[in-house]
Amino acid sequence: MKTLNTISSKTVVTAVGLMSGTSLDGIDAAVVTIEGCGLDSKVKLIQYVNKPYDPNFRERLKELCTLEHSNVALVCSMNFELAERFAQAAIEAVQEAGMPLEAIDFISSHGQTVWHIPENSADDPRLIRSTLQLGDLSVLAKRTGRIVVGDFRPADMAMNGQGAPLAPYGDLILFRQGDKGRILQNIGGIGNCTALPPGAGPEELLAFDTGPGNMLIDQAVQTLSGGQLMLDAGGAWASRGTPNEALLTEMLVHPYFKQAPPKSTGREVFGKAYAEHWIAKVKSAGCTDADIVATATAFTARSIADGYRRFVLPRYSIEEVIVTGGGAHNRTLMQMLRTLLPKQNVMTSNMLGFDDDAKEAVIFALLGNDFLHGISSNLPAATGAHRATVLGKLALP
Amino acid sequence: MKTLNTISSKTVVTAVGLMSGTSLDGIDAAVVTIEGCGLDSKVKLIQYVNKPYDPNFRERLKELCTLEHSNVALVCSMNFELAERFAQAAIEAVQEAGMPLEAIDFISSHGQTVWHIPENSADDPRLIRSTLQLGDLSVLAKRTGRIVVGDFRPADMAMNGQGAPLAPYGDLILFRQGDKGRILQNIGGIGNCTALPPGAGPEELLAFDTGPGNMLIDQAVQTLSGGQLMLDAGGAWASRGTPNEALLTEMLVHPYFKQAPPKSTGREVFGKAYAEHWIAKVKSAGCTDADIVATATAFTARSIADGYRRFVLPRYSIEEVIVTGGGAHNRTLMQMLRTLLPKQNVMTSNMLGFDDDAKEAVIFALLGNDFLHGISSNLPAATGAHRATVLGKLALP
Repeated sequence: MKTLNTISSKTVVTAVGLMSGTSLDGIDAAVVTIEGCGLDSKVKLIQYVNKPYDPNFRERLKELCTLEHSNVALVCSMNFELAERFAQAAIEAVQEAGMPLEAIDFISSHGQTVWHIPENSADDPRLIRSTLQLGDLSVLAKRTGRIVVGDFRPADMAMNGQGAPLAPYGDLILFRQGDKGRILQNIGGIGNCTALPPGAGPEELLAFDTGPGNMLIDQAVQTLSGGQLMLDAGGAWASRGTPNEALLTEMLVHPYFKQAPPKSTGREVFGKAYAEHWIAKVKSAGCTDADIVATATAFTARSIADGYRRFVLPRYSIEEVIVTGGGAHNRTLMQMLRTLLPKQNVMTSNMLGFDDDAKEAVIFALLGNDFLHGISSNLPAATGAHRATVLGKLALP
Repeated sequence: MKTLNTISSKTVVTAVGLMSGTSLDGIDAAVVTIEGCGLDSKVKLIQYVNKPYDPNFRERLKELCTLEHSNVALVCSMNFELAERFAQAAIEAVQEAGMPLEAIDFISSHGQTVWHIPENSADDPRLIRSTLQLGDLSVLAKRTGRIVVGDFRPADMAMNGQGAPLAPYGDLILFRQGDKGRILQNIGGIGNCTALPPGAGPEELLAFDTGPGNMLIDQAVQTLSGGQLMLDAGGAWASRGTPNEALLTEMLVHPYFKQAPPKSTGREVFGKAYAEHWIAKVKSAGCTDADIVATATAFTARSIADGYRRFVLPRYSIEEVIVTGGGAHNRTLMQMLRTLLPKQNVMTSNMLGFDDDAKEAVIFALLGNDFLHGISSNLPAATGAHRATVLGKLALP
């Protein structure tokens, strides 16, 4: 345990943060330096690398996230296979930063969420509050020769939290402002927001999953293109269609949107099964392909804006909405958000000089650092946990 | 990380070791004190508690260990549910020892193995070398308020080992003798042995899974009794039958038995599917129920003795065979072993003044202690790993 002390006694540590989100599109690796710990951490991004999953692997991952095509042997194998891929991504990011691996004090890995049950199931008593992130930490530590921290969500759930969202803690560190209110909106597979009132502290923020992010849009594009396209690049396809208002109204009746925060959702609710059912329905309603993509895009935009109007704007004064994640590259989606939120300045974090895509990987590096300092990194205001607690697990090389 | 230093600087630590084996019959919890670390550890058993799984839960666990009845949501939930049960077992063991929980420096948990793939599958490229032990360490740490170490097998597999067997390391610490050769034979769901030549060091031992332990016997008893009996208590049923020699010969042709160590096996090979197929076959061969149980029992005994004759006895002089695990309570099985191994003294470890059933839980407490000292605890001679390495992961309360 001597090595661990060396790390926590350093003024500045160098770390790699690894994130792979519910979009199942690949691995984000961020090489950072961190000074201090907790809410006073100062982080600098040195290098950011995105390693997309190849389509075949992505398809396997998606299947693993279904009840029909998953089993215990596939979970067992995928836990190891993902760890090898995480190790490769970390090694490449460090190489691209022009650093030797030995310069890395630790790697911090979120893992790949393959299932998430925020509340006990009413239908099946076997399905209890729990979450499953794959990418074995020991395999990652042995393969890279570095100390590894990761798998942060279960600790929050053990404290009665929803295990999500965890990013608001990082948003608070990275984006809080004394003089203006901000919403950080990440649009990955799922959309999640963190609302920071002016001068926000850890108890004065609101964070929740807004609903589907790119999940339904991606699935629609993949189905309609017969698997040729993975996503609607720049929102070009959606821009050629018109959202179907009747369908939209019906979609927004989903009970998730009315539920008060803290709340979280995932592929279990808005994943492949939801998408396939929906696409079959809109097709039979006579929409064109472009209208279908436009409607999926508007669904994301509307569910985000509605969430703000229901839960955030009555409470906090918000001047800026900063969008990150894959959705920030969808110009149609960004335009819809601007129309829906005329009083706020809707921008991408790139506009602030911070690389969007790297944000979550950077945040998980911060969480790893806090584990090594033995300090808590969940926000009960965001996750609903009954107290703040140390998140994560440690594996040694 | 200060707490961790306090632990590793103590002369004597108090810990709880938790084990739940491939029999899926319950949780063993051992409260121990440990002086020192590594091969020089001195361990004392203070309290041992066994918490059987209720039949309904056991059935759910068994289903989770099948390809047909498992899925990602059930794995996700079971990982949390098992951790709650492990926490309860640890708390009860400490209470029975008359100690406050605060006296426990750490808990060390093996976890429940639900799948194990010792070699890449030749048939399905998705199934790679990997292992899956459930019982989330963070949930266990938060529920007990103690530091938790556990999940030891993946680190060995990451070093190209089979992730099993790990118990030989503890056998070496607990049972090595300067002047006589011993085999430690554990008979849980799977049988595994550690052969220690006189004055054995970490490189001079041989350890491997011998094949099915109680797995096939238990399944036969459960099927033949229509679920009324879980196991053949004391070997009474088997004692009323005669093993079918023709069937036995055929069963022993299974390629696993010829494979040279290091090797490991599990429920994937000798589990429910194997048992059901076999029971259907012996029934159609006209065996009585007692003959079937006797044949299953003789299969375990023969596969153990054959394994010794193939791999151990040509190499080491062995005077004693010490049997532990549930199988040590099966008098018919013990008698068969004595007949098959006339030159060895076949005994249970109870005869040596050490509580059998507690052995594996005690050993995993030793492995947890070594993690906290940052030292390796796998034996490449047993697992086939290309080097010794620190095993385990750590979670904080």
